[in-house]
Amino acid sequence: MDMKASRLIQDLESQVTGLDPAIARQVQAQLDDKTKPRGSLGQLEELAVQYALVGGSANPERPNPAIVVMAGDHGVTAEGVSAYPSEVTGQMVANFASGGAAINVLTRRNNTRLVVVDIGVQSPIPDLPGVRVERVRNGTRNFLDEPAMTETDMIRAIGIGSDLASELCADGINAIGLGEMGIGNTTAASAITAALLDQPAEAVCGRGTGIDDASLQRKIDVVNRARAIHELDGANGLRVLQCVGGFELAGLVGVILGAARSRCVVVVDGFITAAAALVAVNVAPAVRPYLVAAHQSVEIGHTAILDNLGLRPLLDLELRLGEGSGAALALDLLDAAWCILIEMASFSDAGVTDTGR
Amino acid sequence: MDMKASRLIQDLESQVTGLDPAIARQVQAQLDDKTKPRGSLGQLEELAVQYALVGGSANPERPNPAIVVMAGDHGVTAEGVSAYPSEVTGQMVANFASGGAAINVLTRRNNTRLVVVDIGVQSPIPDLPGVRVERVRNGTRNFLDEPAMTETDMIRAIGIGSDLASELCADGINAIGLGEMGIGNTTAASAITAALLDQPAEAVCGRGTGIDDASLQRKIDVVNRARAIHELDGANGLRVLQCVGGFELAGLVGVILGAARSRCVVVVDGFITAAAALVAVNVAPAVRPYLVAAHQSVEIGHTAILDNLGLRPLLDLELRLGEGSGAALALDLLDAAWCILIEMASFSDAGVTDTGR
Repeated sequence: MDMKASRLIQDLESQVTGLDPAIARQVQAQLDDKTKPRGSLGQLEELAVQYALVGGSANPERPNPAIVVMAGDHGVTAEGVSAYPSEVTGQMVANFASGGAAINVLTRRNNTRLVVVDIGVQSPIPDLPGVRVERVRNGTRNFLDEPAMTETDMIRAIGIGSDLASELCADGINAIGLGEMGIGNTTAASAITAALLDQPAEAVCGRGTGIDDASLQRKIDVVNRARAIHELDGANGLRVLQCVGGFELAGLVGVILGAARSRCVVVVDGFITAAAALVAVNVAPAVRPYLVAAHQSVEIGHTAILDNLGLRPLLDLELRLGEGSGAALALDLLDAAWCILIEMASFSDAGVTDTGR
Repeated sequence: MDMKASRLIQDLESQVTGLDPAIARQVQAQLDDKTKPRGSLGQLEELAVQYALVGGSANPERPNPAIVVMAGDHGVTAEGVSAYPSEVTGQMVANFASGGAAINVLTRRNNTRLVVVDIGVQSPIPDLPGVRVERVRNGTRNFLDEPAMTETDMIRAIGIGSDLASELCADGINAIGLGEMGIGNTTAASAITAALLDQPAEAVCGRGTGIDDASLQRKIDVVNRARAIHELDGANGLRVLQCVGGFELAGLVGVILGAARSRCVVVVDGFITAAAALVAVNVAPAVRPYLVAAHQSVEIGHTAILDNLGLRPLLDLELRLGEGSGAALALDLLDAAWCILIEMASFSDAGVTDTGR
């Protein structure tokens, strides 16, 4: 890796700080004193503890969330691995701009800031209001022919993501949900997952937006061939990202690193964002405790990553849309967890008998 | 059953109408035309379909929800089946009145109307603001000695619930979440479930608020003995409810029947409310499609009921608090499902290529 690239990654990694277990104990003690049987709010209590721990305070501010949707295209769609043409990526970015997509609807309903970034769309629609154009290239190369990105372009995409996270956190955001749009990106995520978890393609490839059996077989072949061509293994997450990833995936890796550096919770959505999280943890293991898994998608590769990272999903609604839709839904649970921690009465406040159970 | 009681139940049952499958097809077609792969919002789409179906319109009004918390005590606590004394039921009702309990916090955060009913508290605290006092008796009898309620009292409790549901629906509520508070009521719910599902007590008894092994064994013995003493079987849900249920359980049966009669969705919370749903479906099978399962609790009896009723829970967060806390969380998903159905753009609206997948 060149010097400048190496410095960005090293800086990001070194700036992610470890968390203070004393805060977790303090928050659990506060929760145990609330008027309910100990632990009876299950994962909601764990979420409250994690949120406080990440923020570094046992009495944290209320979650002020954003969803970052990174959009990019994939040269590997030339291999017939998706049910939709690449043009749909740009069309969906336009849909985000006009407010009609699922992620618009879901973020409007719970007052979540939505940030849409064109970081590598192939056929962009010009002059879309509210879309941040930070396009590194118009899509990646076909990774069966050459690496998906140059190292320089990948680092640029990571820097765009980390700068965006820093900007949002400086503006008061303390929970960032990850979203993405990119026709073909389940193939890229599958290739990343296969390499980093040392799994056969069959164990990580699903039907994405809804491909048929023949397309699924092509996808599996593509993932297996890519791994052989680029001689990928799990030792170097950045090299895997560069060879078979995408601009939106690299951007999300940057968002994760930048958010963790700013003590901001990161809410992982489905398979694609989980693949970005896998790379981020490979690069900087200290980001792991900053991650919350919003949901369990139907993609089998997603399950493999969550198991590997030890992340327990909050929701399991058979979602497979992406865009950050599961993350947007999970933000309601994060807000509820905060409300429980801060607003519930204690046994002594309420005059309720505490048997310590 | 006496004539008057029989008439109330028959009226309720006959007034629950079947649903029109044409609406379900119309709503699914609308969802399939939204800018997302077909079915990619999973259970959220199913929830939107069910909500529209129950309301009887493919373009329903936005959910306007309430949570009804019925509180009552149980004579069977004399057998040492709970970790908390009966006084806690009244204390928690006072906590609801002062706004400090989990259900207060969770309903405030998503603007859900909270209705707390003392339908049978043993040691009530007088003059609590906002609590509806409709106390049939100060707690049930110990069902190892005699039926928990007289038939007349049970019918009175059912009528209180159905009248309340009618009143709420007349006031614009179109989604009612079920909540309860009652020390000892997991024992009552276990006895109901064992009888109606013809299961051994071991298969339906859990640790409730957190009892130890000895108390769990007592609970299992109590449930087995109760079933033998009262010669309970699954044929007559009302008789099971009368012999081993409770006032809050009977009240919730009434809420379910009354809500369904008014074409209102019923959001079932944990084990206790599911036991009430089991009785309601036994009495009036037509209520089944009006039910939504908010979550999967850690109580094994809850799983048995959801399986029997064919209800798929929306959440699985290891909750075991009751009060309607899981239902309150699930109302966010119901609202999100409605937003998707009504607010998302179609492929043609948004100019996005539809490949029909």
